[in-house]
Amino acid sequence: MKKLKRSGRLVDMTYYLINHPHQLVSLSYFSDRYQSAKSSISEDLTIVKEIFEEQGIGSLLTVPGASGGVKYIPFVQFEEGKRLTEDLCKKLEDKERLLPGGYLYMMDILGTPKFMNDIGRLFAAVFSHQKIDAIMTVAMKGIPLAYAIASHLDVPVSIVRRDHRVTEGSMVSINYVSGSSKRIQTMSLARRSLQEGANVLIVDDFMKAGGTARGMMNLLQEFKANVVGIGVLVEAEDVEERLVDDYVSIARLSEVNEKDMQVNAVPGNILNKLEEVKK
Amino acid sequence: MKKLKRSGRLVDMTYYLINHPHQLVSLSYFSDRYQSAKSSISEDLTIVKEIFEEQGIGSLLTVPGASGGVKYIPFVQFEEGKRLTEDLCKKLEDKERLLPGGYLYMMDILGTPKFMNDIGRLFAAVFSHQKIDAIMTVAMKGIPLAYAIASHLDVPVSIVRRDHRVTEGSMVSINYVSGSSKRIQTMSLARRSLQEGANVLIVDDFMKAGGTARGMMNLLQEFKANVVGIGVLVEAEDVEERLVDDYVSIARLSEVNEKDMQVNAVPGNILNKLEEVKK
Repeated sequence: MKKLKRSGRLVDMTYYLINHPHQLVSLSYFSDRYQSAKSSISEDLTIVKEIFEEQGIGSLLTVPGASGGVKYIPFVQFEEGKRLTEDLCKKLEDKERLLPGGYLYMMDILGTPKFMNDIGRLFAAVFSHQKIDAIMTVAMKGIPLAYAIASHLDVPVSIVRRDHRVTEGSMVSINYVSGSSKRIQTMSLARRSLQEGANVLIVDDFMKAGGTARGMMNLLQEFKANVVGIGVLVEAEDVEERLVDDYVSIARLSEVNEKDMQVNAVPGNILNKLEEVKK
Repeated sequence: MKKLKRSGRLVDMTYYLINHPHQLVSLSYFSDRYQSAKSSISEDLTIVKEIFEEQGIGSLLTVPGASGGVKYIPFVQFEEGKRLTEDLCKKLEDKERLLPGGYLYMMDILGTPKFMNDIGRLFAAVFSHQKIDAIMTVAMKGIPLAYAIASHLDVPVSIVRRDHRVTEGSMVSINYVSGSSKRIQTMSLARRSLQEGANVLIVDDFMKAGGTARGMMNLLQEFKANVVGIGVLVEAEDVEERLVDDYVSIARLSEVNEKDMQVNAVPGNILNKLEEVKK
């Protein structure tokens, strides 16, 4: 790669770091890549760090020592997090999405990669200080959010299925009781899709009583895996007894009235969590 | 936002452009954002453009005139494309992924967001000159690739289902004949998930005879939508009669021998397509 001047290095370095979140990049790597002295690279990184932090892009951790380097941790500033949660609430309150039975159509929200990526970065910020080895979700509506979060944490995604396909190899299955309908259902995860003892963040698009999340927690026990947390895009409010109590949500439905065609949503607890992480 | 020096502007501008692919950003936007003269912004963009093109990050189109600005088009250089296709072939040839019946386990590949994002950028490069309004895929294994491509093209994703859920509202369903098993199956897409007349790129993880792709094409007719192209991650080789003939693939299985535990894969036609686009 040809020798680059500072201005060129800053552009390429920003691109590189953004594409390698949560990865330790050594000074030598950049020094070789740009045929520049480590002292110059250090100065570049000071500039990048300052701008990343000022503009709320994320933080740049410096790991000292011979095996050290820098690590880009995506972050979201409180104001941006607030804007994102309010944006979601506003979208949810569009009465056009009310379906028979009081269900809400959400595929337009889940189907917008840019919005999912922003929400994914918000979750990644909240869980940025925790050791996470994998994201687990259930097919299919949890998938977009799971990938958006996993991209920002640079971890793989494990997808739990409600059916059994030949392309999955041996699977581990459990029965669980859906919290709201009280029906017994089955969920399965391919044996090779998750390492034993992994630290896992559970993700879903919607949570009512939490039966599905509880099912995923039980399934994780079969893999001797640890639940680091649960993140959902939207939670329902009118729940008598929730089966999980520690979770992070972006928005909460405070009213869904099919008869009056009224949907109200309020921000979930993610902003509190974001505040805690900053401390 | 506080006034930024050139070095700071270059870092923030790179981040901003990377996060807004295929979107026209006016000079005034940057000029306001950084409280800098348009002439300085123009110089910044010249530097960004040069590095984006030299480093194979993408191109920066300049749209002149009062309503003009710049547009970042993600791209992949031939060498990187070659590396990605070869990387996929090598992964596919790992005999550990052979399943009974000659099926291949691919969830580890599909479950890695970083790799999917790179492959998504490759597809986005190949289709960068075409007008695409949406990506369509079928649940569930096509979803990761569909989102990866859609992110780089900044378009929404429509997910076709093989079942019917209450959370989708009214759906349009068709029957189709699976090309390899010859069974009649049903696929459905939520009415509101795709606009009439949209220009659509069809995406899937795997294609054998092409029955699913052909089904999606038929479904698109119901939406009066246009098929811009078909992109698949992996195609099978031993196909007597393919039901679609114009598609782009990253890799092609040239041999899957369950008895001898042998899998061979060769690059698909995407590199030829990449060469054509450059011209």
